[in-house]
Amino acid sequence: MSRKKKGINAERELIHLFWKSDWMPIRVAGSGSAPIPCPDIIASNGKRNLAIECKASKNSKLYVNKEDVDQLIDFCSRFGAECWFGVRFDRTEWLFLPIEHLEAKRTKFLINMDVAKEKGLRFNDLITKDL
Amino acid sequence: MSRKKKGINAERELIHLFWKSDWMPIRVAGSGSAPIPCPDIIASNGKRNLAIECKASKNSKLYVNKEDVDQLIDFCSRFGAECWFGVRFDRTEWLFLPIEHLEAKRTKFLINMDVAKEKGLRFNDLITKDL
Repeated sequence: MSRKKKGINAERELIHLFWKSDWMPIRVAGSGSAPIPCPDIIASNGKRNLAIECKASKNSKLYVNKEDVDQLIDFCSRFGAECWFGVRFDRTEWLFLPIEHLEAKRTKFLINMDVAKEKGLRFNDLITKDL
Repeated sequence: MSRKKKGINAERELIHLFWKSDWMPIRVAGSGSAPIPCPDIIASNGKRNLAIECKASKNSKLYVNKEDVDQLIDFCSRFGAECWFGVRFDRTEWLFLPIEHLEAKRTKFLINMDVAKEKGLRFNDLITKDL
């Protein structure tokens, strides 16, 4: 399966998880190509807005451009949304990390599968998190 | 210009208006075809979430399917968003109507240009509205 296809399937799966849990999820049109910074998915339960940048990989490492991270922070601050990185490694469930658990490299942030498993939130923890 | 193209251009114009006014707008992917109910645009300033179903027309009348209205209401109630119909008639600015100013017909709601001009909010009034 191509990387793009894998990414789209993973996003659909996440949309479905929110939907089943009585949250209202939407996919953002043109995320990644829009001139305006935006995340891949926004979900709300009427109280919390979650902005999620989604990444899927068959490896144990994922990289995010620093520019994308800056844009997500900017978006969240204006939109009034919590900022999350949703990562889906092969044979693991969705894990959700705040920016502080990304490891800064020169031009990118690294998301390590082991760190994600240790520090990331599972879906049910994400949606029941008490802020 | 085709009706679809006109609609897309009108949406882009509205996105730009929000962006210029320090609101954060996004276009919803697959609105109109997604299995999950969703509006065309969501915009937030960090305090108010606006869900907007956009309609553009060269005529003085616009129709909205009752099913679409039901879906928008459902979305807004779950997402925690205000529910608006944004209408753009030729040679008029964007006007924004709440559901109660739509006129119920048998299977559709009618939005009349004269009613929209009289009762609709202009863009600046929409974003500064005190709820």
